[in-house]
Amino acid sequence: MTLTVAGLQHHGVLGDVEANLDLIADAARRASERGADLLVTPEMFVTGYNLGDRLAPLATPELVDRVASIAVEVGIAILAGLPEPVPGGVANALVLIDADGTELLRYRKTHLFGDLDRHLFVAGDTLPPIVELHGVRIAVLICYDVEFPETVRAAALDGADVVIVPTAQMEPYAHIAERLIPVRAWENQTPLVYVNRVGSEGDLTYVGRSSIVGPDGVVLDALDADSTGLMIATIDPEATRRARQENPYLADRRAELY
Amino acid sequence: MTLTVAGLQHHGVLGDVEANLDLIADAARRASERGADLLVTPEMFVTGYNLGDRLAPLATPELVDRVASIAVEVGIAILAGLPEPVPGGVANALVLIDADGTELLRYRKTHLFGDLDRHLFVAGDTLPPIVELHGVRIAVLICYDVEFPETVRAAALDGADVVIVPTAQMEPYAHIAERLIPVRAWENQTPLVYVNRVGSEGDLTYVGRSSIVGPDGVVLDALDADSTGLMIATIDPEATRRARQENPYLADRRAELY
Repeated sequence: MTLTVAGLQHHGVLGDVEANLDLIADAARRASERGADLLVTPEMFVTGYNLGDRLAPLATPELVDRVASIAVEVGIAILAGLPEPVPGGVANALVLIDADGTELLRYRKTHLFGDLDRHLFVAGDTLPPIVELHGVRIAVLICYDVEFPETVRAAALDGADVVIVPTAQMEPYAHIAERLIPVRAWENQTPLVYVNRVGSEGDLTYVGRSSIVGPDGVVLDALDADSTGLMIATIDPEATRRARQENPYLADRRAELY
Repeated sequence: MTLTVAGLQHHGVLGDVEANLDLIADAARRASERGADLLVTPEMFVTGYNLGDRLAPLATPELVDRVASIAVEVGIAILAGLPEPVPGGVANALVLIDADGTELLRYRKTHLFGDLDRHLFVAGDTLPPIVELHGVRIAVLICYDVEFPETVRAAALDGADVVIVPTAQMEPYAHIAERLIPVRAWENQTPLVYVNRVGSEGDLTYVGRSSIVGPDGVVLDALDADSTGLMIATIDPEATRRARQENPYLADRRAELY
């Protein structure tokens, strides 16, 4: 079994939920036409990210229902970044909706980035469970989470076939997209899907450079620093199994030493 | 307090201990003239690495004394890669000798690489302690060890100011030197010194590309794929402290989640 994943790199429309849902619906249709089983948006795409005080009023439970409606209408699974109202404030969340509208996963960003995230969000307190879609085991992370080697390692050791990472990576951190992401895939022999924004929101300029990286660290598809659109690739757990035989980092770990 | 480190990138002479000790002595003098406090050799440099059955007879305790004599004669600390006789065989070891001949550290490679290492060596069973030289806290690793994010993370959390990694990295793994090493430094905001061989030994072709990388992942000095010689840079714990304030990965870890 394989999973064909499409990642939407886009600037979105800051604070305009209807416009962003339209963008998701349009991308879902195009992704489906290209054979994708799953559409992934950037971090906080449904509302926009750098919203300051304008964020909290937009964080309603209905956002998930709206995404689910698109999934059902188009007949494609969607992993969307959105704000989730939680006790004490708003979580920077992901929701994974199957093509039949079933919610498979909700995850709240566990590693908050600097004052920006800490002013906006309440941190999640658990790493995500692994969920299956089309027989492929998916782990998710959000942006800064992936910069900690522990998170991807935990997912790989938990049996993830792929780690999907919606992000809002900004200047001057293009090197995270270009250099760190392939290394994370390589050192775990696990595919990564890194889906970033482009354009600007207030004082943030996003660096694009979304990519889908294979279990051997080789880029399968990618977008440049500025363009909007879809990247697409097929995740094959059998390829991951072969990669882990060839470069057996997971087997060669000396867990008793760390 | 700072520590100026010189790394010797060289092919050595396979199986010729006297020739390799002469190379170390020559490099020690040149490093000292350039102001280095510490000379680092590649992995297994005193004897050569890919020796097969010729290795065990060369693995004598006297090798350490010979390195110590050079350190005292030149007045420079030396971190040398050499075989160490241990119960059950030979360890792929490092020894750190101070400029007065004192042995500060011995480390045995804990992550053996493939059949090559497993046929030649007995694995070490402990990560290295942190040792101080000129007030700078040093951790060491050997080659494949550094490809596991856990090892450098453990050193950084233990308070290492720098992680020094003698290696014998071969084709087709140039991307480890070029891509993984800067990411290791970045994600721990900890300088790395990666000292490789060049040339060939039997069926192995080493990829050179030794580097000294600062705590922000920026290369301070490096050598290319083929040349022999020294690279040199100064490790300043104060720069590391500042880097860790700017990019606080170590503080932002969620240790309770991993």
